[in-house]
Amino acid sequence: MSSSGKEEVAVMESYPMNGGDGTFSYNKNSNFQRVATNVARETINEVIAEKLDIKQFSPALTTFQIADLGCSVGPNTFLAVQNIIEAVRRKCESQGLSSQLPDFQVLFNDHASNDFNTLFASLPSDRPYYAAGVPGSFHGRLFPKASLHFVHSSYALQWLCKVPKELVDPNSPAFNRGRVHYTSAPREVSDAYTSQFAKDMVTFLHARGEEIASGGIMVLVMPGIANGIPYSRVPSGVMFDLLGFSLMDMAKEGIISEAQVDSFNLPVYAPSPDEMTALVESNGCFSIERMDLAAPGSKIDVSFGGHACMLHLRAGMEGIISKHFGSDIIDDLFDRFLGKTNEFSDRLNSAYRQGSQLVAILKRK
Amino acid sequence: MSSSGKEEVAVMESYPMNGGDGTFSYNKNSNFQRVATNVARETINEVIAEKLDIKQFSPALTTFQIADLGCSVGPNTFLAVQNIIEAVRRKCESQGLSSQLPDFQVLFNDHASNDFNTLFASLPSDRPYYAAGVPGSFHGRLFPKASLHFVHSSYALQWLCKVPKELVDPNSPAFNRGRVHYTSAPREVSDAYTSQFAKDMVTFLHARGEEIASGGIMVLVMPGIANGIPYSRVPSGVMFDLLGFSLMDMAKEGIISEAQVDSFNLPVYAPSPDEMTALVESNGCFSIERMDLAAPGSKIDVSFGGHACMLHLRAGMEGIISKHFGSDIIDDLFDRFLGKTNEFSDRLNSAYRQGSQLVAILKRK
Repeated sequence: MSSSGKEEVAVMESYPMNGGDGTFSYNKNSNFQRVATNVARETINEVIAEKLDIKQFSPALTTFQIADLGCSVGPNTFLAVQNIIEAVRRKCESQGLSSQLPDFQVLFNDHASNDFNTLFASLPSDRPYYAAGVPGSFHGRLFPKASLHFVHSSYALQWLCKVPKELVDPNSPAFNRGRVHYTSAPREVSDAYTSQFAKDMVTFLHARGEEIASGGIMVLVMPGIANGIPYSRVPSGVMFDLLGFSLMDMAKEGIISEAQVDSFNLPVYAPSPDEMTALVESNGCFSIERMDLAAPGSKIDVSFGGHACMLHLRAGMEGIISKHFGSDIIDDLFDRFLGKTNEFSDRLNSAYRQGSQLVAILKRK
Repeated sequence: MSSSGKEEVAVMESYPMNGGDGTFSYNKNSNFQRVATNVARETINEVIAEKLDIKQFSPALTTFQIADLGCSVGPNTFLAVQNIIEAVRRKCESQGLSSQLPDFQVLFNDHASNDFNTLFASLPSDRPYYAAGVPGSFHGRLFPKASLHFVHSSYALQWLCKVPKELVDPNSPAFNRGRVHYTSAPREVSDAYTSQFAKDMVTFLHARGEEIASGGIMVLVMPGIANGIPYSRVPSGVMFDLLGFSLMDMAKEGIISEAQVDSFNLPVYAPSPDEMTALVESNGCFSIERMDLAAPGSKIDVSFGGHACMLHLRAGMEGIISKHFGSDIIDDLFDRFLGKTNEFSDRLNSAYRQGSQLVAILKRK
């Protein structure tokens, strides 16, 4: 976009979820995200009822614009926007605007490499909104200025724009040997991740600050962590440790090399509420209406065990792992991972009792 | 869409252009459409300069919304919208609005089965607009009410929603035996096509009448024909006759059956200026600013011969032909078609000297 031409925008990498609707597709394996969406739903309903003022928008608002950032291919995005629209309609009615309900337009955003063809093919035929797909990184501008009234993003902001260079530099104290993430890593490693996440949030909040109309609401749902808790005690942290263990086992057997493991790092991050609060305040465009930690894992029934964990991780991470290690190792790797979930089931179950979902609700000043 | 729920909307079939960017892709074989776009460009520039009044739109317009209907996968759509934006910017400047230029948002529309992934991957990186893809048939509502300021559609409106039933009914006087189109057919056949096109335009104009803001411009570019001229004398008519001859040759050799040819009809239509004028006036929402016939074929250099005709036809029609006859016959069929273009080169060349492109420029009252 010409309008963001003055800013230095890092080259962004994209790691689409598994497309299509096969056995290991995101479409068929986003149960965790669906549960997370359900947990966030009540909070969203409350915030729309209490904090959204339809009359605040320009006189006679004819179109209420909703963006879902990092929508992937469905079906979770459809459930989320349906819920938002129902809540906004209720709010309009409570504000005495029943006879002049706006049209709703939903802008589904994800990287250009996302499978928009699958997304479009699975749009609900009876949807009460006009649908559009918007390709591109949400770390830059995507929408015209002050054009959005509600922004939603669920399980997308944890993806970093890039892996910090020092993690793969053997001469750096942040060199992340034998691991694939900052879970259970030295402080220098987690500091590198923290710094990258902060940079990403600067560009994200700056872009949204320009795009969201005054009074507009932004709901960010993502992996989070309680202030002061080590990442090794939250569910995704356990999974990344087990993934690292599985890869190192394969390296020891000579199937892959240790250097390959050393040079691979998952670019995902989970902030604490304090950290997120500081980043939002530093941006200055938004008031913080809520900053909650929830534990969606505790709402998932017992059948969500190791196998479901494996499918969840594979749907989200197969692309990035294949790109680095080749696709030949994938079946073997996730078989081993499944074994690890049994071996470490106590740690996994314990983690699921920890708060691990951050819900930030912001309002454009 | 709930908002169009009261209307009877026919089940619409879609015939996407060849996707991807291979030898026979639309992406690589849309030269004719590109030339057509160039021919329409000057007209568009004039109309924006003379007929568009930016100040007429709601106070302090912040986003100028452009839709391209039936955009396919590029590159023509990108050239067309780039030109429109440059012309609108010039108009803004001439209206003294240089310091408050709106943002531009372009909504690229085509059937949900269009290859939007290819479209999004080929978006120009330095585009001066925000891009979105809008899947769905333009014979229904696609956009919020009064949200569009400029609508463009090039070589898409000729596609009928469906093949009229009577064309494939052996007991009907409109049964279209041995042909694939109304070119060179009895009056009953062309009447069935004419009637279907009129129905399609009713739904198209009704939807656009709701979506385009008062003062907004709509440019429709499509195959057209001079009042009173037989279709067999325009380029696409000649091509469809040659396609029919090629298929009938294959039927005579037993490669396909005559019944297969009898039951196949290309759902494409070219109206005359008088016909289009009557349809627009009957709708009542738009004033007619221009209704021109041009001959883009005459602007194509001599190298655009039979081979280019074949590639053009194949890129646009391979999908629908494969669906009916199977993909096995495609290479053979287009080889035969190429032979026919040589055999009938006089007729083809003569047709290219006839006006054959309709440019309708409408303004929302």
